[in-house]
Amino acid sequence: MAAEQPGAAEGSVIESTPFVLKCPKGTRDYDPFQMAIRQRVFGIITTCFKRHGAVTISTPVFELKETLTGKYGEDSKLIYDLADQGGELLSLRYDLTVPFARYLAMNKIKQMKRFHIAQVYRRDNPAMTKGRFREFYQCDFDIAGDYDLMIPDSECLKLLHEILTDLKLGNFVIKVNHRKILDGLFAACGVPTDKFRAICSAVDKLDKTPWETVREEMIEKGLTGEVADAIGGYVQLSGGSDLIEKLQMDASLMKIKDAENGLNEMQLLFQYCEIMGITGQLSFDLSLARGLDYYTGVIFEAILKGDSSSPGSTVSVGSVSGGGRYDELVNMFDPKSGKVPCVGFSVGIERIFSIMEARAKEGALGDIRTSPTVVMVASAQKELVKERMKVSNMLWDAGIPAEMSYKKDPKFLNQIQFCEQHGIPLIVIVGADEKEKGGVKIREVNARREAESFVLLKDLVDEVKKRLT
Amino acid sequence: MAAEQPGAAEGSVIESTPFVLKCPKGTRDYDPFQMAIRQRVFGIITTCFKRHGAVTISTPVFELKETLTGKYGEDSKLIYDLADQGGELLSLRYDLTVPFARYLAMNKIKQMKRFHIAQVYRRDNPAMTKGRFREFYQCDFDIAGDYDLMIPDSECLKLLHEILTDLKLGNFVIKVNHRKILDGLFAACGVPTDKFRAICSAVDKLDKTPWETVREEMIEKGLTGEVADAIGGYVQLSGGSDLIEKLQMDASLMKIKDAENGLNEMQLLFQYCEIMGITGQLSFDLSLARGLDYYTGVIFEAILKGDSSSPGSTVSVGSVSGGGRYDELVNMFDPKSGKVPCVGFSVGIERIFSIMEARAKEGALGDIRTSPTVVMVASAQKELVKERMKVSNMLWDAGIPAEMSYKKDPKFLNQIQFCEQHGIPLIVIVGADEKEKGGVKIREVNARREAESFVLLKDLVDEVKKRLT
Repeated sequence: MAAEQPGAAEGSVIESTPFVLKCPKGTRDYDPFQMAIRQRVFGIITTCFKRHGAVTISTPVFELKETLTGKYGEDSKLIYDLADQGGELLSLRYDLTVPFARYLAMNKIKQMKRFHIAQVYRRDNPAMTKGRFREFYQCDFDIAGDYDLMIPDSECLKLLHEILTDLKLGNFVIKVNHRKILDGLFAACGVPTDKFRAICSAVDKLDKTPWETVREEMIEKGLTGEVADAIGGYVQLSGGSDLIEKLQMDASLMKIKDAENGLNEMQLLFQYCEIMGITGQLSFDLSLARGLDYYTGVIFEAILKGDSSSPGSTVSVGSVSGGGRYDELVNMFDPKSGKVPCVGFSVGIERIFSIMEARAKEGALGDIRTSPTVVMVASAQKELVKERMKVSNMLWDAGIPAEMSYKKDPKFLNQIQFCEQHGIPLIVIVGADEKEKGGVKIREVNARREAESFVLLKDLVDEVKKRLT
Repeated sequence: MAAEQPGAAEGSVIESTPFVLKCPKGTRDYDPFQMAIRQRVFGIITTCFKRHGAVTISTPVFELKETLTGKYGEDSKLIYDLADQGGELLSLRYDLTVPFARYLAMNKIKQMKRFHIAQVYRRDNPAMTKGRFREFYQCDFDIAGDYDLMIPDSECLKLLHEILTDLKLGNFVIKVNHRKILDGLFAACGVPTDKFRAICSAVDKLDKTPWETVREEMIEKGLTGEVADAIGGYVQLSGGSDLIEKLQMDASLMKIKDAENGLNEMQLLFQYCEIMGITGQLSFDLSLARGLDYYTGVIFEAILKGDSSSPGSTVSVGSVSGGGRYDELVNMFDPKSGKVPCVGFSVGIERIFSIMEARAKEGALGDIRTSPTVVMVASAQKELVKERMKVSNMLWDAGIPAEMSYKKDPKFLNQIQFCEQHGIPLIVIVGADEKEKGGVKIREVNARREAESFVLLKDLVDEVKKRLT
C-alpha cells in the first residue's frame, strides 16, 4: 500500500527532516568491495562475449510503454511504469531483449551479434538472500540474422557453457527444449491452439511446483483431466540424444508437423553441441517452457547444481541464465520489414554475484583490493602541507596513483595506518631536512626491514616506477 | 501532453500492431561505434579518478521520493516520479550526489573518497544537438570527511583539470566562487536572509541571460532597484588572486563575517592551486552561483572555450562539469550524526561525447574498431560447417576471439568481405584436402602478398598467437 505523501513544496528552504533511510524495496547499494567483485564478474563475462565477436550497444533505461506492451505474457503486471507527468507514457525496461528488437527494427538492421550488460526492473516479490531483486543486472548476448538452422543456436549454448565454466561456479546443467516440440505435443494431446501459450506457462511452473498442482492449473485453464495427463506423460521426460530418438519413434507425436520439425532441429542442435564438446552439461528437458511469449524455437535455461560444502551454498542452486529463439519479435515492431530471426540468452548476475561475494569473503578469490593508490605522500612534521601537495602533484602528473592526508598536520601514525588499511605499497616521506636537500625519503610499507632511502625529487618518479615493477 | 492510452490487456495473445518506433523523448541508443568512443571517454576519466585514490560504489537508479525532496530547489520540478503501483513512492535519481549522501548517512560512513559513473534523469527540455538529454551520464568524484580548509577542495580542482587535459578538449576555464562570498555580498548589499537562495538562483542565470533580465527577476523577487544594482556591481566581476585582494580591501564587504571567511578561504584555495600549477585555467567569477540548494562553500564549473575550426565545434563550447562543497547534506539524512562535510564534482559526459564522436568521424582519434574478432574461420567449399565449427571451437577454447559464418555453405567472397568490413586480421581456411591432412590454411587478410600457409590443427593456436603479436 502506498504511504500518505504530503505535497512537497518545490524550491522550499532546506529543512532537516528525519525519515527512514533506506534503499527502495528490492534494491541495494554496492560498496567498494562488492563493486570490485562485480567488475571481476563483468570482466569474465565480457571477455567471453568478445571471444565470440560480439559488439555492444546501449539503450535507454525506459522505453515507451507501448514498446513493452504484449511482449511478456502474464509477467506484464511486473513492469514498472513512470508517473504521467505530461508527455509520453514510459516504462522501465523489463529485459534487454525487447529493447534490442526495437533497436533492430528502428534502425532497419538485419544482422547483428551484440552483447549488452545493464540493469532491468521487475516489480516482483524480492527474495534478496536468494539473489532475487527488483533492480538487477542482465548480461545479454544475441545473434540476429537469417541464418541456417541451429548454427547460431548452438554457438549460444557453447558461449553460455564457456561463461559458466570461466566463472568457476561448480557443476551446472543447461536444460534445452523447443517451442515447436511443446506446441506439437500439446496438439498431439488435444490442446486447442488458442490455449497453447496458457498451457505453456502452466508447464513452466514445473520446476518449482509438483505435477499435481500444475495439472490442476491446466484443468482450470479448460483442459480435461485426460488431456492434462497426456501432457504430463511427456513433460516429465528428460534426457539426451536418446530421448530425441525415442520421441522420433512416437507416431502420434510425429504426425504433428511442428513436433517433427522441432525434434529434427533438436537432433541437429545436439550434433553441433557434440562437436563443441558440451553435451555433457546439456539436458533435453520437456518440462522447460520459459514464461515469455516471444520465444518461437529452441529455449534453454542454465541451472547451477550447487555444492553444499562450498561458500555461498545457500544461493548456489538455481537458474542463472535463460534464453532461446525469437523469430517474430523484430517483426512485431516493423511488420513490413523482412524476417529478422534472433536467438540469444541472458545471464542474471545477482545469484552469481552472491556466490562470488561469499567466496571472496572466505579468501577464495585471492586479494581483492579496492583502493587503486600505490603511493602515500606523508609527513612526520608540521607545516609541510604545501610540500606534500607539491610531491603528490608531481606523482599525479606522472600518472602515478597517489594520496596524501587532507589534514594540514596529520599524525604520522595515522598516515601509516592508512597505508596498511588500504594496502598502499609505497610511502614517500616529506621532511624539513629532506626538503632542504631537494628530496624526500621513500619506504616500502610491508618490507621486512623498514629501510628508508633518500631520493632527489627529480628522480622520485623513476624510483617509484622502479619499485612498483 | 499525455497521449490517450488504451488499457493494454495483460497476458494477451501477441499481436502485430504497427506504432511509432522511437526512443523516449530526450533519450537515445548508442550504436557499437558510439559505445567504443563512450568507453574510451570513461576509461580516461576512470584512470584520473583512480590516480587520486578513489574507490567506486553504486546505488539504485531510483530512490524513495522523500530522499530527493527538498534538495534541488527550483529544479525539483524536473524529477521523474514512478507511477504509484502500490508500495513505496519512488523517483529516478536526479544526480549522484544526493544518493551518495544518503549512502554515507545510511551506513554511518564518516570518510570516503569515491567515484561513481552512472546515468541520471531530468525532465528538462532536451536539446540533443547541444548534448542536453533527459537520460545522461554523470561521472562523479567526491571527498567526504572532516578535513582542513581547502585541501580536498583544491585536489578536486586539480583532478578536474587533469580530466579536461587528458580528454584533450582544447582550452577550458574553471570558474570558482564561494557560497559564503555570495551570501556575504548579498548581506552587504542589503538582501534579507530569507531571500538569499532565491537571489542566488537569479544570479545563476547570468551565464545565459543579460544583466538587465536578471535585475528584473531580482526586483520581481522583492529587491529594490538600488539593492539589485549593488549586487550587479559585484557579480559582474571576475579575475584571479588580484580580485580576491581587491575585495579584501572592500570595507563594506569585509565587515560581513561570511564574506571575510569566504575570501580568506578563496585566497588559500588559490595558493594551493598555484602549487599544483592550475591557476592559469582558474577564474574567480562572482557571477557563478550554481542552482542547487545543497552547496555551502566553494563552488565551481568548468567551461570549454571551443575552437570554431575543430570538429564538433557546434557542441564544443559550454559547461561540462560543476561541483562544490556541501557540508550539510549528509546531516539532512541523519541530523544526529556528527558532521560529514563533503566536496566533489560531476563531469557531464554527453557534450564531451559529442565532441569526441565528431572528432572520431574525422579520424582524429585513430582507428576505432568495434569488433573484437581476430580470426575468421572460413571455407570455400560446401559441406564443411561441422569442420568450421570444430576449428572455431578450438580457438574459443584457447581464448582467441573467432567467428565463423552462420550459413551452412557461405560464399567465400562474403566471408572475405566480412573480414574486411570488421577489420579481422586473420583468416583460417577449412578445406576438404586440408581436413584430410589434419590441418587448415591460414592467411593474413591485409597482407600485401595473400600467401596462404598450411598449418596442422594441433599447431593452429600457437600459429595464430604468433601471428597476432
